[in-house]
Amino acid sequence: MQSQHELLDFFTQTRARSEEICSHLKTEDYVVQPVENVSPPKWHLGHTTWFFEEFVLKPHQKDYQLFDENSAYVFNSYYESVGDKVIRTNRGNLSRPTVSWIYDYRDYVTKALKEFLKEAEISKELCGIIEIGCHHEKQHQELLLTDIKFILGNNPLFPKYNDKFKENPIQNFTQEWISVSEDIYQVGHQSNDFCYDNEMGTHKVYLNDFEISNKLITNAEFIEFIEDGAYEQVLLWHAEGWDWINTNNIKAPLYWHHTNGNWHQYTLNGLEKINPAAPLSHISYYEAFAFAQWKGLRLPTEFEWEVAQDKFDWGNRWEWTESAYSPYPNFKKPEGALGEYNGKFMVSQKVLRGASVATSPNHSRHTYRNFFHPQLRWQFTGLRLAK
Amino acid sequence: MQSQHELLDFFTQTRARSEEICSHLKTEDYVVQPVENVSPPKWHLGHTTWFFEEFVLKPHQKDYQLFDENSAYVFNSYYESVGDKVIRTNRGNLSRPTVSWIYDYRDYVTKALKEFLKEAEISKELCGIIEIGCHHEKQHQELLLTDIKFILGNNPLFPKYNDKFKENPIQNFTQEWISVSEDIYQVGHQSNDFCYDNEMGTHKVYLNDFEISNKLITNAEFIEFIEDGAYEQVLLWHAEGWDWINTNNIKAPLYWHHTNGNWHQYTLNGLEKINPAAPLSHISYYEAFAFAQWKGLRLPTEFEWEVAQDKFDWGNRWEWTESAYSPYPNFKKPEGALGEYNGKFMVSQKVLRGASVATSPNHSRHTYRNFFHPQLRWQFTGLRLAK
Amino acid sequence: MQSQHELLDFFTQTRARSEEICSHLKTEDYVVQPVENVSPPKWHLGHTTWFFEEFVLKPHQKDYQLFDENSAYVFNSYYESVGDKVIRTNRGNLSRPTVSWIYDYRDYVTKALKEFLKEAEISKELCGIIEIGCHHEKQHQELLLTDIKFILGNNPLFPKYNDKFKENPIQNFTQEWISVSEDIYQVGHQSNDFCYDNEMGTHKVYLNDFEISNKLITNAEFIEFIEDGAYEQVLLWHAEGWDWINTNNIKAPLYWHHTNGNWHQYTLNGLEKINPAAPLSHISYYEAFAFAQWKGLRLPTEFEWEVAQDKFDWGNRWEWTESAYSPYPNFKKPEGALGEYNGKFMVSQKVLRGASVATSPNHSRHTYRNFFHPQLRWQFTGLRLAK
Amino acid sequence: MQSQHELLDFFTQTRARSEEICSHLKTEDYVVQPVENVSPPKWHLGHTTWFFEEFVLKPHQKDYQLFDENSAYVFNSYYESVGDKVIRTNRGNLSRPTVSWIYDYRDYVTKALKEFLKEAEISKELCGIIEIGCHHEKQHQELLLTDIKFILGNNPLFPKYNDKFKENPIQNFTQEWISVSEDIYQVGHQSNDFCYDNEMGTHKVYLNDFEISNKLITNAEFIEFIEDGAYEQVLLWHAEGWDWINTNNIKAPLYWHHTNGNWHQYTLNGLEKINPAAPLSHISYYEAFAFAQWKGLRLPTEFEWEVAQDKFDWGNRWEWTESAYSPYPNFKKPEGALGEYNGKFMVSQKVLRGASVATSPNHSRHTYRNFFHPQLRWQFTGLRLAK
Repeated sequence: MQSQHELLDFFTQTRARSEEICSHLKTEDYVVQPVENVSPPKWHLGHTTWFFEEFVLKPHQKDYQLFDENSAYVFNSYYESVGDKVIRTNRGNLSRPTVSWIYDYRDYVTKALKEFLKEAEISKELCGIIEIGCHHEKQHQELLLTDIKFILGNNPLFPKYNDKFKENPIQNFTQEWISVSEDIYQVGHQSNDFCYDNEMGTHKVYLNDFEISNKLITNAEFIEFIEDGAYEQVLLWHAEGWDWINTNNIKAPLYWHHTNGNWHQYTLNGLEKINPAAPLSHISYYEAFAFAQWKGLRLPTEFEWEVAQDKFDWGNRWEWTESAYSPYPNFKKPEGALGEYNGKFMVSQKVLRGASVATSPNHSRHTYRNFFHPQLRWQFTGLRLAK
Repeated sequence: MQSQHELLDFFTQTRARSEEICSHLKTEDYVVQPVENVSPPKWHLGHTTWFFEEFVLKPHQKDYQLFDENSAYVFNSYYESVGDKVIRTNRGNLSRPTVSWIYDYRDYVTKALKEFLKEAEISKELCGIIEIGCHHEKQHQELLLTDIKFILGNNPLFPKYNDKFKENPIQNFTQEWISVSEDIYQVGHQSNDFCYDNEMGTHKVYLNDFEISNKLITNAEFIEFIEDGAYEQVLLWHAEGWDWINTNNIKAPLYWHHTNGNWHQYTLNGLEKINPAAPLSHISYYEAFAFAQWKGLRLPTEFEWEVAQDKFDWGNRWEWTESAYSPYPNFKKPEGALGEYNGKFMVSQKVLRGASVATSPNHSRHTYRNFFHPQLRWQFTGLRLAK
Repeated sequence: MQSQHELLDFFTQTRARSEEICSHLKTEDYVVQPVENVSPPKWHLGHTTWFFEEFVLKPHQKDYQLFDENSAYVFNSYYESVGDKVIRTNRGNLSRPTVSWIYDYRDYVTKALKEFLKEAEISKELCGIIEIGCHHEKQHQELLLTDIKFILGNNPLFPKYNDKFKENPIQNFTQEWISVSEDIYQVGHQSNDFCYDNEMGTHKVYLNDFEISNKLITNAEFIEFIEDGAYEQVLLWHAEGWDWINTNNIKAPLYWHHTNGNWHQYTLNGLEKINPAAPLSHISYYEAFAFAQWKGLRLPTEFEWEVAQDKFDWGNRWEWTESAYSPYPNFKKPEGALGEYNGKFMVSQKVLRGASVATSPNHSRHTYRNFFHPQLRWQFTGLRLAK
Repeated sequence: MQSQHELLDFFTQTRARSEEICSHLKTEDYVVQPVENVSPPKWHLGHTTWFFEEFVLKPHQKDYQLFDENSAYVFNSYYESVGDKVIRTNRGNLSRPTVSWIYDYRDYVTKALKEFLKEAEISKELCGIIEIGCHHEKQHQELLLTDIKFILGNNPLFPKYNDKFKENPIQNFTQEWISVSEDIYQVGHQSNDFCYDNEMGTHKVYLNDFEISNKLITNAEFIEFIEDGAYEQVLLWHAEGWDWINTNNIKAPLYWHHTNGNWHQYTLNGLEKINPAAPLSHISYYEAFAFAQWKGLRLPTEFEWEVAQDKFDWGNRWEWTESAYSPYPNFKKPEGALGEYNGKFMVSQKVLRGASVATSPNHSRHTYRNFFHPQLRWQFTGLRLAK
């Protein structure tokens, strides 16, 4: 971020976009939480606001009046070190504060922070926290879209979110293999631009010769996998994946419905017939892995992906990699409450690389490390093969 | 019900009261479902409407146009024999249909049924179904109030429902024992007025001499029980009750909070200091039983209660009895879908007698048999002793 | 019990029979606990022994040396008021004390108690406790047989217990209805012989006219029920029963296997083709109730059963009744630890009347009240209809 | 393996050692399964025998008579592609086949395989399978010891396994840091000796400068961590680890008991006062990680460990590493049922390096990759720091 003025613009745009995303919702849509890892939209709106109040205004703006003493308690999140938090599974029980209260809260904090940025000369460190707050809100914008899709896509009436949302950009080119030679490569974030703590620590990795596809797997290819009976072939699956598909009776990607002899999927435009040419979406790591096994190929590691990424088209689907989410060499948690941001999740999760149709504009980087538990499918997750 | 005209009035008043109850809510309050046995208010409003559409208008009014084909699916309830139903635990995930849609649905059905009652000559049997529909809605009015209390009372902000609601009418008289002599008594519904199937089958029971209190147990008496350590004395409890208090860490009635050295309770007027003279509320059967054991006394049976009820003041608390909910001799399930109304619940539940502050006006009868599983506390349940 | 001498005989025979029952087992069979409500045989042997040590020898025999300080802890049971207990679900984890240790413990206590009975003049009250101990052991003899059946019958090798055990005595007579007239009847235990606390309190009940079958339902009749698709007809079932059959995928009585086009059942003689004429066994209350509904009939209450019992053949199957397990009028828990014997289970259970092929000789009475949760099937439970 | 003769010796010794391990058990100890990931000792004895029968004798020895048709079903394991299997959680329910049956089964198969090795000229590939079978049995020998410890160590009587077992060899030297320089290193199995598929694929990795301790963390050091309140400091823990310690009420390593003001631990010699100088054992990855955080240090990766291992003393504790269990480059699952051996577990687990006091003699290698889910503690897991 170059200047305080730029930061003000960035902040203003970020705040506005969250509200734009929610402008397509009914009040009721803001409230529900169908499963534990999906948060109610109103919680996202409140929580991203709380972040600025808690970490910027409260400690740094003299005479700042909290909007409401109770808000911190309700909108604190995984940051266990800042006061009590509402148990995450219970977010969907909270009818109050209301949606209109939350919009008032947003306005109040947005206005206060804008004035703060306009009036005061702010330290570099504090600018950094505000910048993180914006990126944090952009991450929640992606979650807003994926959580809204889950809420509406699991409603028996399959309501549309927004007719104009483009979920399925097609890669109109032939599949080819990109070769990369054995060598030492540099990975990790290297510029002075913003990045998260988990991307830092540029370091060398040794990669063997490998090839990576220039194209994502399509729906058509995954239908072949299904029709070949791959969901019933134990040898294709991790033991844990096999348990997961059987316990949950999984037979297709999330949001897929086989009706009247055709595959349909719920999209943000409503329930639609599947486009075979569109890139596959909403699969678990287990399914991505089993698909690769079925092809006799494999998933790339996150470093193979990063090293080769400038040679292929990416950005529509988060892509599962074979890499577990671990700290880079010399990774250091930041001090204090923000230190919980990423490090505390570095176990039992898989790295995803790329970005998705739900990613906030200018929020993707080739060093960005997204991460989820292997069974999760509500993100726009896809699959690219390597060998 | 004397006439079709009276039925029209009864229907009109019943419909209006459901809406009056909900007039104190915010849109968000209609949507959430904190626990399985609490339904979202909007579901109650839709379901009671669906009842009239499904059982009256659809089969009996020529040319009736369904308001919306999808509604039956969403608002069907425990009536497993009528189509699919939304799994009960998932009611709280449904942001759509919206609250305003549901009010439109109510208006449409209310209007249609009023016209039907005004214009057509209706068979006695069909009048009976409409009458059941009204009583069914009155039952849901009680659930609306208790579910709303649960939703707001489990919100960390403890929002008020309505300042004017009177939850705690005090019994300003001395406790005395009413004696009833050993004899054969007649129990069950005997008049021609409306009653549910489970009250029917007037029959004789043989009762021994017994005494029953003229007064409900008060908060003050229950505080003595707590302070005597009764929640830690295993011999006072059923094995199942002991497991329940320990598994759920129960140490006081529902909605009670011990803060700053005083007992408070959430009421529909908000969080308040407990009034010691008010009748105890929101206890499980297990707690009622343990309290009686601690006193060296017992709970009355439902027949003792019914035989003695004209000699004491009742109607503010549902009162746990020692009786299990079983069919009366010669109980017959009605034919068809309405046959599921009561009979299917006649196992593993306890009978409660009386009525409560949440009971719809003119909805209480001395033969009314309410029933709940022994651990449930979200109703206005209280306790009267016998010996 | 007439005299101390008779009591000695009774005690001696009781102790011997427990060991006779277990004489058909391998050491490994004594140890396992496949589900929570089935206890390992070695636990039954230890627990019944602990009873005599804890309640007779330890408090009443001077100079008595405990066999082992640790035994009380391991073999205490549901008697929460006597020291700590091994959590019931964990009984199947305890490889020690060993089976041979337990037989030594039995010998030691049996011998000590025999000497005690021979040498000392014992108070009537203490004789009563010893008598209860014998009856307690006889109850565990029934559990031993049913638990052993469960352990072996859920082993994929279906090992035989004992070739000579007669599980299926056939009622070779025609089904008829026995009529009983409306009247006041006296129920409950009336003689001076031993009975449990829950049978006491002889009292009057008023019964309407009813008819009860002279014969138990047979396997052939239940196969008709199955073949009529009754497990798929929701209107026949309690709501709770319907959930239970669907959650547990229940389609036939326990131990039934449909193989090669025929129904087989595991019996204590091994896996056998079903005898259609034999009385049905191993059904839940839910199934008994649904069967009665399917027939357009009902189950008797426990009092109907008791009043009519001298007119029909019973004793091979525990018979589900419609009655919930509740205290009789004037029921009093005995003082002290033995007070937990029956009263603490008087909620959420159904009464069974009769006795079964597994019941200890001379352990059945027409006033005996057995009780189980409605879903339990591992006892030899059967079904007699009323109307 | 040099020759068929050597293989015969190896097989003979391996089989004998399993039986030697179990020679300290009572029959009852062979049967129980206290938690899902602990198998009954008799299952290990049967399963390792089944392996030789299923993969060697049945397909390759002409005229081989199966010992018993039912055995395959009961002793098949995670090899989902070979027939049905006994559900893993149910292994503890199987009283039959008996322990003596299993010893007969072992004798029969051991004898048959010895004769097979003596008489026939066997292909290299088949020798390879027999060798794998022996290593497989050696792995189960370690599990036998750790499972036996769990079975006896969770018994309230804390029975000894064997007085002579040495669990706690002390590292009698000063802690020092070993420095390793940034460079490309070769990792993975390189000789012609036996190794598992998951160690294969020698490959280069790039390591930064690092230091690794020459010594394992001791009990004394971990007591400091406990006494500093580290189990209550959220910032030290992974989110998942924090949930785990709170859900399971974890406050110390497995088998530790704080009694009379001192820490004790159950060992295979019985319950003992903790030796502060002994290496820490029975911790989860979460605890290992939190300890490193508390020290301001970190765990080594599996490659750092492998590269440095010839400079430090190891072999008494399996050592948690920071590395997730993933396939090496060019990892290939073997064809057929043996292909399930390792690859199917390569998700959600952490690599442990080293060996333990329970490891079979000659079964440790510096390239050996052990792996467990991060919460598991019943192995002899320890902790070495890096920076």
